[in-house]
Amino acid sequence: MIFHQFFEVESSTYTYLLASEQTREAVLIDPVASEIDIYTQYLEMHNLTLVYSLDTHVHADHVTAANLLRDKFGCKTVLHRNSGVNCGDIFITDQSVIRIGEINIEARYTPGHTNACTSYVAEGMVFTGDALLIDGCGRTDFQEGNAEILYDSIHTQIFTLPDETIVYPGHDYKGRLVSTVGHERLHNSRLGAGKSKAEFVEIMNNLNLPYPKKIDIALPANKACGQ
Amino acid sequence: MIFHQFFEVESSTYTYLLASEQTREAVLIDPVASEIDIYTQYLEMHNLTLVYSLDTHVHADHVTAANLLRDKFGCKTVLHRNSGVNCGDIFITDQSVIRIGEINIEARYTPGHTNACTSYVAEGMVFTGDALLIDGCGRTDFQEGNAEILYDSIHTQIFTLPDETIVYPGHDYKGRLVSTVGHERLHNSRLGAGKSKAEFVEIMNNLNLPYPKKIDIALPANKACGQ
Ligand SMILES: [Fe+2]
Ligand SMILES: [Fe+2]
Repeated sequence: MIFHQFFEVESSTYTYLLASEQTREAVLIDPVASEIDIYTQYLEMHNLTLVYSLDTHVHADHVTAANLLRDKFGCKTVLHRNSGVNCGDIFITDQSVIRIGEINIEARYTPGHTNACTSYVAEGMVFTGDALLIDGCGRTDFQEGNAEILYDSIHTQIFTLPDETIVYPGHDYKGRLVSTVGHERLHNSRLGAGKSKAEFVEIMNNLNLPYPKKIDIALPANKACGQ
Repeated sequence: MIFHQFFEVESSTYTYLLASEQTREAVLIDPVASEIDIYTQYLEMHNLTLVYSLDTHVHADHVTAANLLRDKFGCKTVLHRNSGVNCGDIFITDQSVIRIGEINIEARYTPGHTNACTSYVAEGMVFTGDALLIDGCGRTDFQEGNAEILYDSIHTQIFTLPDETIVYPGHDYKGRLVSTVGHERLHNSRLGAGKSKAEFVEIMNNLNLPYPKKIDIALPANKACGQ
């Protein structure tokens, strides 16, 4: 398998590329519009064909590259059915699988940050979008956010994965690249060490976060797949 | 929308083509390997690009054209996740949606004939595969068949559609092309007029059908997408 983690500085967004060594088919998870030249260069350098772009959810902090990539490479735009987006090609639901070569990418529906959040599991890794972050989680105070639902999603869909599963989050604001399910289950300061749902909700209700800077631009753009 | 119903005589299989007039993208539902030249001719004649081939289930009576079509047109092979098939590209689950141009094709999981049976709903039509047939239904005596599950699938996933929804089945052995949900709910001789689950199971247990002629060839072939 070919794997690469990209970082977009302005919104601290991680984008992931997975590709099959056999078929040279590639997917991008959470691509950012401004970075399209970097993805293109990487794909060309490694002789890869971009087949799918997957968004873990409708982002409020950056504009997806989905449409740009579809226009450029003819790849399919994949989103959860609940995304309310009308421009996608494939609207997956829980347990749907996208396959490239020998790699199965399984969707796990993990709502709570938004109503369409999906994590993707492949090859011992989980791409958690903004559901589970390293030592944190996505906020639940806008875009259908619901702390109780997020708690359940993380516990039933992510913490049930094997301890050694590598957690690749949608963002990190402190330079951390990667974690594991076992580490987050024990040490995540909002969810770890068996914190109860009530404790989690209490924490989430008292974050007092500022209004997201780019939400008024990013949301409408992402509802149109980035156009 | 462009729509066409094909008929393969040997196994009495119906294949359906749906295409967007805007984007010229097409899908084929339940294509049969022997008919590939007919599909190709139709696609070329109407200037269409085949984007997906969908199988409603792993067929026991004919060999799918999925692999042939993928090799020829580069389309994606779509199946339900439960199909146990390892050669597909996209493994959908209940409520997944495949979109071509202005057309949304919604998957409805309808097990009972097999464990992977999926009906597809689009533009006031439902493609029922071998779940619901005209005045009948798929048999439940092989391939994970289960009459109780089939009864529930048809009642919850197909009979809940509007009366006027057009039913396009996977087969007909008497030359009938089409029915409606309202007609089948009233008149289907196994399920209609409010027949109970017990009555249905009794009927299905006493069909005394012969061993399917082509199952020993078709099943292994279809588990490999027709190769
Ligand atoms: Fe987000
Ligand atoms: Fe069948």
